[in-house]
Amino acid sequence: MKKTAIIMGSDSDWNVVKKAADTLEELGMPFEVRIMSAHRTPAEAAEFAGRAAENGFGVFICAAGMAAHLAGAIAANTTLPVIGIPIASGSLGGMDALLSTIQMPPGIPVASVGINCAKNAALLAAQMIALGEPELAQKLCEMRKSMADTVRSKDEQFRNMY
Amino acid sequence: MKKTAIIMGSDSDWNVVKKAADTLEELGMPFEVRIMSAHRTPAEAAEFAGRAAENGFGVFICAAGMAAHLAGAIAANTTLPVIGIPIASGSLGGMDALLSTIQMPPGIPVASVGINCAKNAALLAAQMIALGEPELAQKLCEMRKSMADTVRSKDEQFRNMY
Amino acid sequence: MKKTAIIMGSDSDWNVVKKAADTLEELGMPFEVRIMSAHRTPAEAAEFAGRAAENGFGVFICAAGMAAHLAGAIAANTTLPVIGIPIASGSLGGMDALLSTIQMPPGIPVASVGINCAKNAALLAAQMIALGEPELAQKLCEMRKSMADTVRSKDEQFRNMY
Amino acid sequence: MKKTAIIMGSDSDWNVVKKAADTLEELGMPFEVRIMSAHRTPAEAAEFAGRAAENGFGVFICAAGMAAHLAGAIAANTTLPVIGIPIASGSLGGMDALLSTIQMPPGIPVASVGINCAKNAALLAAQMIALGEPELAQKLCEMRKSMADTVRSKDEQFRNMY
Amino acid sequence: MKKTAIIMGSDSDWNVVKKAADTLEELGMPFEVRIMSAHRTPAEAAEFAGRAAENGFGVFICAAGMAAHLAGAIAANTTLPVIGIPIASGSLGGMDALLSTIQMPPGIPVASVGINCAKNAALLAAQMIALGEPELAQKLCEMRKSMADTVRSKDEQFRNMY
Amino acid sequence: MKKTAIIMGSDSDWNVVKKAADTLEELGMPFEVRIMSAHRTPAEAAEFAGRAAENGFGVFICAAGMAAHLAGAIAANTTLPVIGIPIASGSLGGMDALLSTIQMPPGIPVASVGINCAKNAALLAAQMIALGEPELAQKLCEMRKSMADTVRSKDEQFRNMY
Amino acid sequence: MKKTAIIMGSDSDWNVVKKAADTLEELGMPFEVRIMSAHRTPAEAAEFAGRAAENGFGVFICAAGMAAHLAGAIAANTTLPVIGIPIASGSLGGMDALLSTIQMPPGIPVASVGINCAKNAALLAAQMIALGEPELAQKLCEMRKSMADTVRSKDEQFRNMY
Amino acid sequence: MKKTAIIMGSDSDWNVVKKAADTLEELGMPFEVRIMSAHRTPAEAAEFAGRAAENGFGVFICAAGMAAHLAGAIAANTTLPVIGIPIASGSLGGMDALLSTIQMPPGIPVASVGINCAKNAALLAAQMIALGEPELAQKLCEMRKSMADTVRSKDEQFRNMY
Repeated sequence: MKKTAIIMGSDSDWNVVKKAADTLEELGMPFEVRIMSAHRTPAEAAEFAGRAAENGFGVFICAAGMAAHLAGAIAANTTLPVIGIPIASGSLGGMDALLSTIQMPPGIPVASVGINCAKNAALLAAQMIALGEPELAQKLCEMRKSMADTVRSKDEQFRNMY
Repeated sequence: MKKTAIIMGSDSDWNVVKKAADTLEELGMPFEVRIMSAHRTPAEAAEFAGRAAENGFGVFICAAGMAAHLAGAIAANTTLPVIGIPIASGSLGGMDALLSTIQMPPGIPVASVGINCAKNAALLAAQMIALGEPELAQKLCEMRKSMADTVRSKDEQFRNMY
Repeated sequence: MKKTAIIMGSDSDWNVVKKAADTLEELGMPFEVRIMSAHRTPAEAAEFAGRAAENGFGVFICAAGMAAHLAGAIAANTTLPVIGIPIASGSLGGMDALLSTIQMPPGIPVASVGINCAKNAALLAAQMIALGEPELAQKLCEMRKSMADTVRSKDEQFRNMY
Repeated sequence: MKKTAIIMGSDSDWNVVKKAADTLEELGMPFEVRIMSAHRTPAEAAEFAGRAAENGFGVFICAAGMAAHLAGAIAANTTLPVIGIPIASGSLGGMDALLSTIQMPPGIPVASVGINCAKNAALLAAQMIALGEPELAQKLCEMRKSMADTVRSKDEQFRNMY
Repeated sequence: MKKTAIIMGSDSDWNVVKKAADTLEELGMPFEVRIMSAHRTPAEAAEFAGRAAENGFGVFICAAGMAAHLAGAIAANTTLPVIGIPIASGSLGGMDALLSTIQMPPGIPVASVGINCAKNAALLAAQMIALGEPELAQKLCEMRKSMADTVRSKDEQFRNMY
Repeated sequence: MKKTAIIMGSDSDWNVVKKAADTLEELGMPFEVRIMSAHRTPAEAAEFAGRAAENGFGVFICAAGMAAHLAGAIAANTTLPVIGIPIASGSLGGMDALLSTIQMPPGIPVASVGINCAKNAALLAAQMIALGEPELAQKLCEMRKSMADTVRSKDEQFRNMY
Repeated sequence: MKKTAIIMGSDSDWNVVKKAADTLEELGMPFEVRIMSAHRTPAEAAEFAGRAAENGFGVFICAAGMAAHLAGAIAANTTLPVIGIPIASGSLGGMDALLSTIQMPPGIPVASVGINCAKNAALLAAQMIALGEPELAQKLCEMRKSMADTVRSKDEQFRNMY
Repeated sequence: MKKTAIIMGSDSDWNVVKKAADTLEELGMPFEVRIMSAHRTPAEAAEFAGRAAENGFGVFICAAGMAAHLAGAIAANTTLPVIGIPIASGSLGGMDALLSTIQMPPGIPVASVGINCAKNAALLAAQMIALGEPELAQKLCEMRKSMADTVRSKDEQFRNMY
């Protein structure tokens, strides 16, 4: 199975991003966690992105805050799918990171999830990889059913409340 | 090759969404264009999403404006990857569609591209499908190189301007 | 008297939504509290909405945060009036939920109240039901008078302060 | 059948609000169109709201732009349901009118629809009145089915396009 | 000297508004503090505004949050100057109150100060009254000089820090 | 009667600001129109503000766009009341000018009106001056009544429409 | 004199950016205009930035719209000062470009000017270069005086208008 | 070496601005910290700016919150480069300060950094001064390398985590 690369712009994002790693682990998917900065280590980020396909990676998950260029900088150096997680840091609630991540110019796409939604980034990576991995696709279906069951059991509790 | 489903909430979005169809055509990818509304034909949308995998679809591209629920409504009924295109309609410049598309709850991801960025939605779909289609991956690399060449030739013009 | 259905997208919204239940109880109105998710249990939500009229419901109150599709998903499956409560969750102060709830396309209305304003949602439901229930209408008038008296007595306190 | 009062803050809003009148007419509902300003004729607005119930009105639709106080000013003087239409005027795309209409304090609800969504305001009024008018409820169901059929026929056109 | 009326929509705003009262007191200006709600006691608010001139008032200071109609509702019933203080309450940082207070239609002005800036509202009232009260004008000049001196003495501290 | 100073940051604002001059003229108030820039002619602006009281001015109306510092720069040099008109220029709909004008620090107030609302700025100036000019106060009352009559006659037209 | 590099992300920005070139020309400063894209030609952009100092450049002016990464991508590869011009393109009025340009992480600064303010970017570049070029500093002072004179002569026109 | 002037509008900004002083100290650059207010001590600010060049200053760093006029007020009185730091104070997350600082009119530039980004303001000042100080330029390169090394060593930790 192709690997997923989880890249953070800063280790301070880890408390949010960890949920992506947890989800990939739960799904039994191979992945690596890296810290690379579009601004502080741009050459490493570009080189990593450029060689990712030959190194067995299939998808990127990039998390960054503020003027969040990381996902775009990776996307500029690969044609593998790149998922962006805008991180809410600073005083604007992550709106800066959201717009910096998603408003990419035509030709260089980034697939953005909601602010701080690391779990969804991981699930999206899984859905992409699962296009060629029926067993993983099956796990995603089961996880979805389990989520629905949780909602249903909470619904039961509330129905009997009044 | 798995098909891509392009779904619009309204035919008035077609002038924007057409670029997605054009890009898929240029890449030689099979696709269908559909009009289904999360609010006006919710049952059709749910059923289509639920049966898409068995009908040969691999990826969804969903375009909608305002309280843009379409991508989320499709994602609720499938574990295939769903790409959302927020459409700028009404008076808020598409900010309503952007937030309605991207801020999905944990567990049900939507991969959002920028406002009106239909071309990037198509490229993202191609990148996902290309994970299992080396020839398509090759086409994406060539398209990328061609884009870079266009920038370079424009750069030449400007360098000689002053 | 027709019942009111209070539906939450997640039980984490209950601390806000409880005020709606309290208000309906204070007015002596019959109601049910349910947890249904537009994204995690879409079929249940659609079916519940579709059968609500025949099951004795007259009005819906739907509370959800982020890309808040719940009110719209219910409204898509009924022609009973649907009241939406945008819940402030995440980092955008509920602006995402507000726009996702209120900016519905022509033809499928949602009646939105302010962010987290569960009490107003309940009062709105009461005002609708009261169109055919003179006794309930009378209670609403009395509640309104009582609110005014509270303001007046606080005014008295402040007038004598300086 | 109880009448609907359509109130505009200014006759310049009529090109938007007319769709509400058209929709009520199409549904065969009795209504009146009035121009009253929360700021320029506050006494008339208050008096009209206070006597509306005894004058045969069941629902209000109030349209105003900018610091849109009209719906709130009417709601302050009645316990009948009040629907607000935020009008986009000036340079902020109607965001000012939206927040001024919807963010009502606890106790005095306004049911807001999307910016400029006059049709939805009328449908919402119809849904409320229809709680006690089965024939009108039936018309709303038919209108909904007709909308769905329109979507379906447009879907047909697009399916055969590629 | 003409009195200033400080009106709050709710006593919960007092912790912010108290600074206006303190400033008026410091300047030796006569004033009253009232609680009146544009929505809960609209008749009292309208009557108070309408009779304020004959009751010896010269200026209004109106503080309210969310869909802050209070200043506008007072302004609709008087041609005395009305100063609005948008109060930050709820989840939008006071942007709702700011737009609801300031975006008044042509013909009915409200003089808005910054969010929660109760002190500036009081100073503005003083500046207006001072147009006909040279002694008060003198006090305002002295207060201004004193503020400048405070800045200068802090400047001294910092100059010597490095 | 004390004069009103209308100051624009740029002559390109005149098409908006002219309404303030027209309104002052209609009310028979003495005024001057000046172009002074907080950034391009700061010394002139400061000097003019500092000497305005002795030169017979009672109120300032300051109009500027973008990072609209003009009203604040004038207010920093006088204790006469300063009214700010945020001008919508550039691409942000005047939100930049609104926040730059209104969010003044404690101690230096600016009375802001809505974006581009030059007429309200003039009326506010008139209300301030009218505190010591009963005849002007009377004119303001008549103007207000005339506005109400205009609304009433338009109301008549619409009442007979359906 | 050190050269200024004007870099655009796309030739469609030229109609805005041309003012920067015109201003540098007017000041007699040496400069080059280049088209390089942080996303489409990232390697060229990085290499150009890395070698700029040894190639005689002293300052960068980078103009880009939407998720405007260009200034940041250049800044990541040089310690020369980088000035960013956020370009208003798309439907958000340039707010996306503004936040993407200015909200840089600690350590990698970008000096941002206002949306579309190409002239100010050029003047800023001139002010930096002028720190070591007294003649250029002199020209900036004269240009400033000339701007003030223009304001003064327009002020004269308006003073005599009423 | 030319001095840098760090100016705050209020000493309450010091906890943010101190990072600028620390960074200049770390780089061995001469600087002064001052408190001057565009609104409370405008004459001092203007005079300081006007004489800064002859007093040995090369660059300004101006920090202010809300309607942040300080950087603009300094820039209006000098042609030395002025760097603005928008401070997040009040309830709008610093968006008011950001727009007030950056949206300067053509002709009077301010170089704005991100909200509260005092460190970047200092680095920008250093980059400007370093144009004529090769030793300082060298220090900036080393600081940059050191930052990259920090990222690399954190990357090592995470690579070995899974």
